[in-house]
Amino acid sequence: MTKKAADMAQPCIIAVAITGSVPTKADNPAVPITVAEQVESTHAAYEAGAAIAHCHVRNDDGTPSSDPDRFAALMDGIAQHCPGMIVQLSTGGRSGAGAARGGMLPLRPDMASLSVGSNNFPTRVYENPPDLVGWLASEMRAHDVMPEIEAFDLSHIIQAALMADDGRLPRPLYVQFVMGVKNAMPVDERVLDFYIETLNRYAPDALWCAAGIGAGQIVVNEWAIARGGHTRT
Amino acid sequence: MTKKAADMAQPCIIAVAITGSVPTKADNPAVPITVAEQVESTHAAYEAGAAIAHCHVRNDDGTPSSDPDRFAALMDGIAQHCPGMIVQLSTGGRSGAGAARGGMLPLRPDMASLSVGSNNFPTRVYENPPDLVGWLASEMRAHDVMPEIEAFDLSHIIQAALMADDGRLPRPLYVQFVMGVKNAMPVDERVLDFYIETLNRYAPDALWCAAGIGAGQIVVNEWAIARGGHTRT
Ligand SMILES: [Zn+2]
Ligand SMILES: [Zn+2]
Ligand SMILES: [Zn+2]
Ligand SMILES: [Zn+2]
Repeated sequence: MTKKAADMAQPCIIAVAITGSVPTKADNPAVPITVAEQVESTHAAYEAGAAIAHCHVRNDDGTPSSDPDRFAALMDGIAQHCPGMIVQLSTGGRSGAGAARGGMLPLRPDMASLSVGSNNFPTRVYENPPDLVGWLASEMRAHDVMPEIEAFDLSHIIQAALMADDGRLPRPLYVQFVMGVKNAMPVDERVLDFYIETLNRYAPDALWCAAGIGAGQIVVNEWAIARGGHTRT
Repeated sequence: MTKKAADMAQPCIIAVAITGSVPTKADNPAVPITVAEQVESTHAAYEAGAAIAHCHVRNDDGTPSSDPDRFAALMDGIAQHCPGMIVQLSTGGRSGAGAARGGMLPLRPDMASLSVGSNNFPTRVYENPPDLVGWLASEMRAHDVMPEIEAFDLSHIIQAALMADDGRLPRPLYVQFVMGVKNAMPVDERVLDFYIETLNRYAPDALWCAAGIGAGQIVVNEWAIARGGHTRT
């Protein structure tokens, strides 16, 4: 089998980010906010072929939350409606909240997102100080949660590889390249190729996926699939 | 003249970072802390061929400061001992201090450092929130100070180019690639090449220099000079 045929034979893992931490009903009435809405939205994506549910939870007023009880309710609903779907909980939704960002890890979801560096977001710093990163990684190890590394910049890819080298992260790494966030990395095909090259150089056994935020979503999906990677909607 | 000969004919601008914000006399008794020590250290580098003095100032106890009076005294001393030397004041030395980081810009130094994104440092987040970045850039414009962009990661290079496109930064950009900071970008030759390629793609008229921190200093100097760039010791 040629390399290309082998790539074609490798299934593409589609993750669905049902809610995120930013959009509100005012932005889009269809965005699922309550747990019941999130479960049904996930169910629809599951029927359509999504294999991973990337989950944030919200307070009743729609603001972002890291409340373990809400995450537990969402996990229960997804388990009932979407048997076998991989549940990935976000630890990024409340930058600045410190250890509260990892309070749901004892729920032992299949996966959790992990940022290993800091960067700018549209109106603020996305703060992931080294001690918090190390603590979240150790909590994921303790509760047997597979991290998905959220790489918002090139150094985050290398940092993840160094953390796998010294045992702070498990192998193989699963790294998500995130593009299209204002003040961070734009949607850029040449950069995506260099991200892949760099990950292969520092962590040859790693898996990768890519996500475009907002208007860049579809184009990043297409680029990732064309390169044999996984992707997030 | 060939491209290579043209590159060889282009003088290499050497910047000297005399003090930085971290090392203490306990680390190295030769690190210049007082203004008098800084002036004499700069004078020696000037005699040896350095064209830019990259300046931080310290409090009497050696902790980092952004005190405009100390910067003014240092500028006076450098002007007297090193006629024609380009003075570049750091706006990065006290991350977290907000607008105090730009309090020396009304002194109208030739240049000032400017970080346009955030990243991790060895023990903390180097915080450069978007509104502070915009304010520092506008202060530099108001006081006719040329920014040196400090790029600690790939997205910082692109962000600087976007800020030049929309008029927030003057052209041509002068961008410093910084490698060797723990938890940010390691010393990596392939990444340096991609930094140069990316800068050329987004801002073809830009100038660049490179700095290696700590043990990476000499190797980054050599890589930069070999590629026709400028460099910092
Ligand atoms: Zn998310
Ligand atoms: Zn259902
Ligand atoms: Zn400096
Ligand atoms: Zn002198």
